[in-house]
Amino acid sequence: MSAQIRMGVVGAGRIGRLHAENLAFRVPGAELVAVADVDLSAAEACAAACHVDRAHADPRRVMEAPDIDAVLICSSTGCHADQLEQAAAAGKQIFCEKPIDLDLARIDRALAAVEAAGVKLMIGFNRRFDPGFGRARQMVLEGRVGTPHLVRITSRDPAPPPAEYVAASGGLFLDMTIHDLDMARWIIGSEVDELHAMTAVLVDPAIGEAGDVDTAVLSLRYASGALGTIDNSRRAAYGYDQRLEVFGSQGCVVVGNETPNRAVLSTAEGVVSDTPLHFFVERYQEAYVNELQEFVSCLQQDREPSVTGADGRVPVLMALAAQRSRLENRPVKVES
Amino acid sequence: MSAQIRMGVVGAGRIGRLHAENLAFRVPGAELVAVADVDLSAAEACAAACHVDRAHADPRRVMEAPDIDAVLICSSTGCHADQLEQAAAAGKQIFCEKPIDLDLARIDRALAAVEAAGVKLMIGFNRRFDPGFGRARQMVLEGRVGTPHLVRITSRDPAPPPAEYVAASGGLFLDMTIHDLDMARWIIGSEVDELHAMTAVLVDPAIGEAGDVDTAVLSLRYASGALGTIDNSRRAAYGYDQRLEVFGSQGCVVVGNETPNRAVLSTAEGVVSDTPLHFFVERYQEAYVNELQEFVSCLQQDREPSVTGADGRVPVLMALAAQRSRLENRPVKVES
Amino acid sequence: MSAQIRMGVVGAGRIGRLHAENLAFRVPGAELVAVADVDLSAAEACAAACHVDRAHADPRRVMEAPDIDAVLICSSTGCHADQLEQAAAAGKQIFCEKPIDLDLARIDRALAAVEAAGVKLMIGFNRRFDPGFGRARQMVLEGRVGTPHLVRITSRDPAPPPAEYVAASGGLFLDMTIHDLDMARWIIGSEVDELHAMTAVLVDPAIGEAGDVDTAVLSLRYASGALGTIDNSRRAAYGYDQRLEVFGSQGCVVVGNETPNRAVLSTAEGVVSDTPLHFFVERYQEAYVNELQEFVSCLQQDREPSVTGADGRVPVLMALAAQRSRLENRPVKVES
Amino acid sequence: MSAQIRMGVVGAGRIGRLHAENLAFRVPGAELVAVADVDLSAAEACAAACHVDRAHADPRRVMEAPDIDAVLICSSTGCHADQLEQAAAAGKQIFCEKPIDLDLARIDRALAAVEAAGVKLMIGFNRRFDPGFGRARQMVLEGRVGTPHLVRITSRDPAPPPAEYVAASGGLFLDMTIHDLDMARWIIGSEVDELHAMTAVLVDPAIGEAGDVDTAVLSLRYASGALGTIDNSRRAAYGYDQRLEVFGSQGCVVVGNETPNRAVLSTAEGVVSDTPLHFFVERYQEAYVNELQEFVSCLQQDREPSVTGADGRVPVLMALAAQRSRLENRPVKVES
Repeated sequence: MSAQIRMGVVGAGRIGRLHAENLAFRVPGAELVAVADVDLSAAEACAAACHVDRAHADPRRVMEAPDIDAVLICSSTGCHADQLEQAAAAGKQIFCEKPIDLDLARIDRALAAVEAAGVKLMIGFNRRFDPGFGRARQMVLEGRVGTPHLVRITSRDPAPPPAEYVAASGGLFLDMTIHDLDMARWIIGSEVDELHAMTAVLVDPAIGEAGDVDTAVLSLRYASGALGTIDNSRRAAYGYDQRLEVFGSQGCVVVGNETPNRAVLSTAEGVVSDTPLHFFVERYQEAYVNELQEFVSCLQQDREPSVTGADGRVPVLMALAAQRSRLENRPVKVES
Repeated sequence: MSAQIRMGVVGAGRIGRLHAENLAFRVPGAELVAVADVDLSAAEACAAACHVDRAHADPRRVMEAPDIDAVLICSSTGCHADQLEQAAAAGKQIFCEKPIDLDLARIDRALAAVEAAGVKLMIGFNRRFDPGFGRARQMVLEGRVGTPHLVRITSRDPAPPPAEYVAASGGLFLDMTIHDLDMARWIIGSEVDELHAMTAVLVDPAIGEAGDVDTAVLSLRYASGALGTIDNSRRAAYGYDQRLEVFGSQGCVVVGNETPNRAVLSTAEGVVSDTPLHFFVERYQEAYVNELQEFVSCLQQDREPSVTGADGRVPVLMALAAQRSRLENRPVKVES
Repeated sequence: MSAQIRMGVVGAGRIGRLHAENLAFRVPGAELVAVADVDLSAAEACAAACHVDRAHADPRRVMEAPDIDAVLICSSTGCHADQLEQAAAAGKQIFCEKPIDLDLARIDRALAAVEAAGVKLMIGFNRRFDPGFGRARQMVLEGRVGTPHLVRITSRDPAPPPAEYVAASGGLFLDMTIHDLDMARWIIGSEVDELHAMTAVLVDPAIGEAGDVDTAVLSLRYASGALGTIDNSRRAAYGYDQRLEVFGSQGCVVVGNETPNRAVLSTAEGVVSDTPLHFFVERYQEAYVNELQEFVSCLQQDREPSVTGADGRVPVLMALAAQRSRLENRPVKVES
Repeated sequence: MSAQIRMGVVGAGRIGRLHAENLAFRVPGAELVAVADVDLSAAEACAAACHVDRAHADPRRVMEAPDIDAVLICSSTGCHADQLEQAAAAGKQIFCEKPIDLDLARIDRALAAVEAAGVKLMIGFNRRFDPGFGRARQMVLEGRVGTPHLVRITSRDPAPPPAEYVAASGGLFLDMTIHDLDMARWIIGSEVDELHAMTAVLVDPAIGEAGDVDTAVLSLRYASGALGTIDNSRRAAYGYDQRLEVFGSQGCVVVGNETPNRAVLSTAEGVVSDTPLHFFVERYQEAYVNELQEFVSCLQQDREPSVTGADGRVPVLMALAAQRSRLENRPVKVES
């Protein structure tokens, strides 16, 4: 039987809190020990909800605690790289939310520090742990769609973030599309050679004023020859729209939206089902647990996590290329 | 904030183990303290899996432990009534698996003991806590199908139990149909006035030799005037088939099967989705957690559980009527 | 190449008009020559719509026309048997709507006359020619569900007929359930040994006052050992509900409702599709054409139609047994 | 009552034969009088199948027949413009298959001739008459998705045409994508301002050798601000894949594939439905009939057909822009 892994969470915002509760209640093998957030009250609330008594305002208290094996970096994007280096320096195993950073050189320095320290690192691309997308990938790997010709992703949020978040997040591509770029890459098993982004501001003019876009269509060309298309919107009136399709020489696999139930009401007005699960917390509940379970298992069994630092770097590269494509209105090569 | 409820589980078979793990890991507010099973090794295995150190061969050790607030009776059916009385005598709050007993007089005595003791009792009709069926009932209560005219249930297991289990279980109606009888009653909000059962042995001749049947169609007439139909089979090749339909003057709500994912593969051979979630452990995972959560909340808030002792008695009455209908090949009145 | 079959239609009501238009415009190989109806204006309207110039008030004008090869008997049920005999006596090939008659002895005399005359007879069980139900039957015949254990039919009309029609029609079982009894028999390939009917008047009290019922659940036991269940309602608020399921040792085939289109609208209120095709004219449009095409092909190729006079007799026998079951509130044996 | 419209069909290939049979058997108000094809035997076979006795090798025999009101131009694309001018000169009403021509100047001359002659012209964009796509458009027009933000089309053929056809057809964009470009324009009600095409040869190298592509992803920007994406493949192993989605500020309407039946088989291997209707003949059967019915009604009622010459011109313009985008690997403005 494997040992319990003692964990600290750094950053107790929405995603940090979610991970902390999963560690505390739903991931056998993990033991949540401490929570840190620069907003101490957030750390305390999170710790209390998780029945944990150590809450800190200074993340270094977690990094440096000798009884903590691993840290989850769930702070805002701008802090990720520094904290990766701090955690690596302290010899902690690391789980880090995406994106690592918005700057490639900064990512490279942080990854180098992790590598030098010889600690494990896993990047939080939660959708890779969704049962539906996993099933689709398995079918692709088993050759059930033949050679992939096209990957098609629809990814729409139920509501746009505040304009101030948009600015800090690096924009649509680095904040939202990055998940789709990772998903497509993971499914298709090939790198993007060239991409083109066509964008618009249709949801909220404030997003445009902040220099970003809220609606986009991307075309991707993979080294394997396959094509890809991604469409994004910051606001789908019917909820969180997360669909995937892989079309190949022998067939096609489509993953549709998950709904809270399978009840269907027929009346004179129509045949009605419930809207998709509202947002990432509900939609990827199982994926978030699976993701941390994988991280814990990797530590227990001393194997490399399946989502590496390099896997965290490439989608940033692609998102930056998409940004350039948008600004220069032309297809852009993605060069590593 | 409510106090933690300290719990003991009696019976560490399939369903006892399932409940124990939910108490240990997925029901905030509950604390699993001890597990008992006449097979001590089963109790020990269950306790270990739940990170609990008290395992007993004698259920009375749980009943009588002064630090335990509530017990879950998950033993074989024949022990339920005795253990209900023991737990009531010890002043424990009680969660009891269905059926309470196969004999109505015995049920009545046990329920009288519970009532005399003034403890709370909740019966384990897990399907009432399934989100899909709950949504259907909510729609019925909201009047969205109008006045119910017909409730229709399909309930088929993926594989028959061993013939020796069949004998002890009370047979198809008391073991399996009882869930459907409860579900229909809960949805339709009316008592069955008369029912008719047509049955067959089509799955396994050994079930017939044990005096039971494995395939059945029931017709039900409710006091409200509505009709019902239930079909059961002990073996569906494609897995656990659990569907519900309520048809009324204004419409119809249908609850279909849950599947492990929404991936759909199209090839020259056809368009294929995965089979339904395999069996009750997978299918009602969420319902089992919700059910215990309800029990714990009732104890914390000192309110009556929504599934009462009487709710445990009526489906037995109906199942016995179905048995008589089968043996006498005629419609039978259900008299309380 | 086969010769054109010259046809006359007797009875220009709803179903007669439908068949006449199909013969005129959609069934290659058929030529509609004349239409008769005791209401001459109905015959004339039908003839005009079909670009045919012969319209008669007396059906015998069709029966006895020497240039007509075959007649379609689409008059009211009470006239079928007499007209069958007239048509047989005139040596016409015959297509006759269901039911042949409400009285078994009368059916037998009419069928004997047909046999004596040596003419072909096909009974109008249109649902046998529906692509969906045909596909289900093909799967059953190919063994894809294994040995059938259960056939389950839901058949609900969008609106009840006027109470006066109900009286003349022979009631729910002979008018409506007869289609389901035929469908189940055709799919399962076995005769009903015993059946039970549980009924109610929930849609329209006037139907009850006319001595009939509007809601029913039937249980069927087949000679093969399989069971069946049929549920009927005279009024489904969401339209014509026509579903079939065959469950067997290896699997299950379900045929769902056809809809006018596959457009699905997702908004904050829900995910909505259109209601099923409204009623038999829309739902079985293709089946009606296929049915007449089969009749015409049988005449052209001198082979026996697949829906025989005996196939028209058995469902009447079953419907009468259902009637007896309802009146005597007990399971009834179906004896040929 | 409107007069019968007397029709001639020019070109008795696959689509000409399909239209001819619809005129002969399924479009009340139309009377097929003559068929012409440079391959006289094709004309004769078509005429015989339609029970028509006039078959010609010279299309002018149809154009110039004084008893013919309207002609359907179904010849190969290279002949359309000449025949449009001939038909216009002869004063015939005209239905012309898409595309009018591959050259915009040639299209303009032909349309000018039609206008000068004052005859009616309808272009054969059959998909506009499909009930599903029509329903989606109606929803968009009714504002049920709000302001359109994105239109998304998947259009994949079941099998590629021979390479020699590909060459003559003008290539993927002018032969196949043209339908999608028209559909999106019709649905979104706005003109494309700019588009980008990313393409590949993944299905058949011979198509690449012929200078064409077989797989494509297009991005479109509409004058209204909306975006669009179209994906095409010349070969989907599972049949003809024809899907549409319109996403807007209030919701989303999705039109899925039509299947030959609604039978669903569940076995241990999975839950299987039939593949989509195989190809355009089956898939758009109803649309082809509706389309000709619209043409005939326009002639009978002297109103302008809803698919005008200009509607035939714009998608060619867009397809040529897509071609340029592919060859120059950049987004291209669509200028009228």
